[in-house]
Amino acid sequence: MSKSHLFGRDMICSQDWKKEELDEILELAKKMKKDRFSPKFTKLLEHRTFFMFFYNPSVRTRQSFECAATELGGHAQFLEPKTMRLKTKKTAGETTEDAAKVMSRYACGIGIRILEDKISYYGQGDELLREYAKYADIPIVNMADDKFHPCQALADVMGIQEHLGEDLKGKKILITWAHGALARSWCSVQEAALLCSRYGMDVTIAYPQGYDLDPKVIEDVKKNCSENGAKFETTNDVKDGYKGAHVVYSRNWMSPNAYHDGEFHKQEEIEKALGYPEWICDAEKMKLTENALFTHPMPIDRGHEVTDDVASGPRSIIYDVAENRLHVQKAIMALTMSERL
Amino acid sequence: MSKSHLFGRDMICSQDWKKEELDEILELAKKMKKDRFSPKFTKLLEHRTFFMFFYNPSVRTRQSFECAATELGGHAQFLEPKTMRLKTKKTAGETTEDAAKVMSRYACGIGIRILEDKISYYGQGDELLREYAKYADIPIVNMADDKFHPCQALADVMGIQEHLGEDLKGKKILITWAHGALARSWCSVQEAALLCSRYGMDVTIAYPQGYDLDPKVIEDVKKNCSENGAKFETTNDVKDGYKGAHVVYSRNWMSPNAYHDGEFHKQEEIEKALGYPEWICDAEKMKLTENALFTHPMPIDRGHEVTDDVASGPRSIIYDVAENRLHVQKAIMALTMSERL
Amino acid sequence: MSKSHLFGRDMICSQDWKKEELDEILELAKKMKKDRFSPKFTKLLEHRTFFMFFYNPSVRTRQSFECAATELGGHAQFLEPKTMRLKTKKTAGETTEDAAKVMSRYACGIGIRILEDKISYYGQGDELLREYAKYADIPIVNMADDKFHPCQALADVMGIQEHLGEDLKGKKILITWAHGALARSWCSVQEAALLCSRYGMDVTIAYPQGYDLDPKVIEDVKKNCSENGAKFETTNDVKDGYKGAHVVYSRNWMSPNAYHDGEFHKQEEIEKALGYPEWICDAEKMKLTENALFTHPMPIDRGHEVTDDVASGPRSIIYDVAENRLHVQKAIMALTMSERL
Repeated sequence: MSKSHLFGRDMICSQDWKKEELDEILELAKKMKKDRFSPKFTKLLEHRTFFMFFYNPSVRTRQSFECAATELGGHAQFLEPKTMRLKTKKTAGETTEDAAKVMSRYACGIGIRILEDKISYYGQGDELLREYAKYADIPIVNMADDKFHPCQALADVMGIQEHLGEDLKGKKILITWAHGALARSWCSVQEAALLCSRYGMDVTIAYPQGYDLDPKVIEDVKKNCSENGAKFETTNDVKDGYKGAHVVYSRNWMSPNAYHDGEFHKQEEIEKALGYPEWICDAEKMKLTENALFTHPMPIDRGHEVTDDVASGPRSIIYDVAENRLHVQKAIMALTMSERL
Repeated sequence: MSKSHLFGRDMICSQDWKKEELDEILELAKKMKKDRFSPKFTKLLEHRTFFMFFYNPSVRTRQSFECAATELGGHAQFLEPKTMRLKTKKTAGETTEDAAKVMSRYACGIGIRILEDKISYYGQGDELLREYAKYADIPIVNMADDKFHPCQALADVMGIQEHLGEDLKGKKILITWAHGALARSWCSVQEAALLCSRYGMDVTIAYPQGYDLDPKVIEDVKKNCSENGAKFETTNDVKDGYKGAHVVYSRNWMSPNAYHDGEFHKQEEIEKALGYPEWICDAEKMKLTENALFTHPMPIDRGHEVTDDVASGPRSIIYDVAENRLHVQKAIMALTMSERL
Repeated sequence: MSKSHLFGRDMICSQDWKKEELDEILELAKKMKKDRFSPKFTKLLEHRTFFMFFYNPSVRTRQSFECAATELGGHAQFLEPKTMRLKTKKTAGETTEDAAKVMSRYACGIGIRILEDKISYYGQGDELLREYAKYADIPIVNMADDKFHPCQALADVMGIQEHLGEDLKGKKILITWAHGALARSWCSVQEAALLCSRYGMDVTIAYPQGYDLDPKVIEDVKKNCSENGAKFETTNDVKDGYKGAHVVYSRNWMSPNAYHDGEFHKQEEIEKALGYPEWICDAEKMKLTENALFTHPMPIDRGHEVTDDVASGPRSIIYDVAENRLHVQKAIMALTMSERL
């Protein structure tokens, strides 16, 4: 019984971790998937508590994190900050420092989800996670913020490896914007671009004009590609990117204007996005690929982001990737929080 | 360690199950009651997750299902669809197919409660459960929908057997409408009629004109009675049904008009029901019975559905029946979800 | 495996318990702190359920009670009465008797938190707890009501003992009102005065005119002091009480007018309190003490109740006291609810 050398580490963005460390997560996640309820794993967080802060609701993230804690022998507390007396700009309450210091006495880790309407400018959610990380003595795990979603990207890469093999060099992923009625954050697609490029994939990002992602993140993706001898491209063409793709990742995201005036203009974003009905992943576009896998972090807005025949087709790996969320999160929790690994 | 032959089965209505299968549930529930924390039972769902979807709130059902999972060694996640991004007629979101398929990767079973104001026509809640059952690879358990409530009826029958003996043939249950301020769904009384008639009881249903239950369900109750040589009667008389009864089940239910115009007219129903103050189970009416037991699925609207002296009297089995919810649900979960039985 | 002689006891106010019994709690809590995950403790509530009723939200109390159940091998259900169908003055629903009797069949104990805006007169919250205690066959634990907060006071005394030694006779605690923007209940300060006086401390309570606490509680504190040969004082001077203090406990509380007209006038109370900016614990006042410890039940309203340099200074024991909540609650639950101690 001992701690891993990764014990105590925060997981806010995969880019903060070394490639070999990410390999350790994926390797453990795959073992856990193969031997899910083995006693090797079910005692790792026995009687330990993991706090989950959901500023924003979520099905998959809630279910998979709470499941992960249960399967490691521990317990995840579902906490909604709206029922908590935390300090905000407008109301008196507890400082992040006090909250984080006390929680460090009770729990083995803290997961935080904050994005969309719970922030007033891009980057604010990620700042909150990093402020918790500064004061907490226990690991902070990103359960999706406005910038990053490392657990999702690790699940994506794990799923792609399961279907294309461990070595992803020379494989191309198309990350394409799609129209839709949900105005989604950039976290999943940005982290997917970051992580796939760490694993040597060629990355193409396609979107209509006016839907640029975070330039700082794109710089990191380019750097990752160049370090791994991979190609990076962006295009505003709805079809071009499909050519030669081994994986297609089609998802809506909001425009850089979503937070103008200091609030989240969801309805405005949805209306704008619905003006691009040609931006949907369908069988015709998939024919341009190298028999590409289809993936998506779910929940899918079917009929907008992708057609039913593609999402439910034989090359769709969406359920495998969704399942991998559980295994990846178990692995992260085990490596960073268990004293019994 | 092996699965029961009932592994994987949905429990949406007891009528979907064979009598011998229901016997197995009751037999196991009685063993579990006798030996509640035996290691024979506390590992059955160890480290497994059960999802509970509460479209409508509930005390008893929440408490008893979450308890059941804990006592089987597992964990029940309390999920409120209002905090989830599921697709509805009005909003984009995830399809039932996608939700059910992913949940099947995480959990060993899903409980769903949906009735009253969360539906817009009678039967819609039950349809949702059957849609989940169609797509999920894991059992769906009905935690009360608009039509059926099998866990309650199994707890009722278990309680009646505990007090009247295993063989219920020739025993009469009066299921009587009562006035009240809650406008309750038909699920508990309909399922009680279905199940008591499966167990050979004579069934009398009493209610004022205008409070008919689902004719399709009544047909099934009649068929059950005829198959078991039992009597079936309905009456609009407030007292007649008490004569010869061994069990009295007094409870308010809404009228067939409750959903006219596609929404739930709760206040209208309450006002109408309060116009029948004579429809209350009281000591005087109980004198007409064969020293009948009093039962009710709880929560009781005391002073409307039943007087305090009957509800708290020596023939009341309400707390025993409420406790049986726990044991019956443990038995259902063990038989349909455990790989270690 | 056996029950303690305290099995079955309610913990609503420490004053209801004998000093020797409180010693047992603190002794066990200290053992549990030293050897937190020892198998001696992690089976005490194995597979048992503890119900938590949060009429009012809370971070610390929720986290520490749910943690406590997990660390004892059990599970705490987080229940919000707003999602339950309990009877109120205005709506039909279940009586406390019925609720308590059924819950006694499912769980090993019930925690209840009710204060502030969920009551309409001082004392009503405590009455509800005592009504539950009357009907329940299982222990009721006060998770903070309008009058008392025994778990907090036990954590306070445990923290003070850790820093000043077991024997607190001759040590002086100043409990001082502070201005602030939260209009807090009397429970924490009243219980601290009651318990510190049981442990022989001299107690001084300081507050501006118009902020008297419950005269009945003050009588009990005086009686405790006189029985233990300790001094009791009150003062309306903002500085006097600091002289000679070994512990300073600075916290806002509402005035006795907070519930005039049968509702909680939070905003009025906050405005009134903010008119006393000199009532803050700061370094200058702390210089008057005997190098006193600073404590507070948290969450702290920094800048109002206490300055940052004191709250985060070397004599602050706030995080230790917060951690002690967990250990004290584990000890209470073990002694009153475990059959395996």
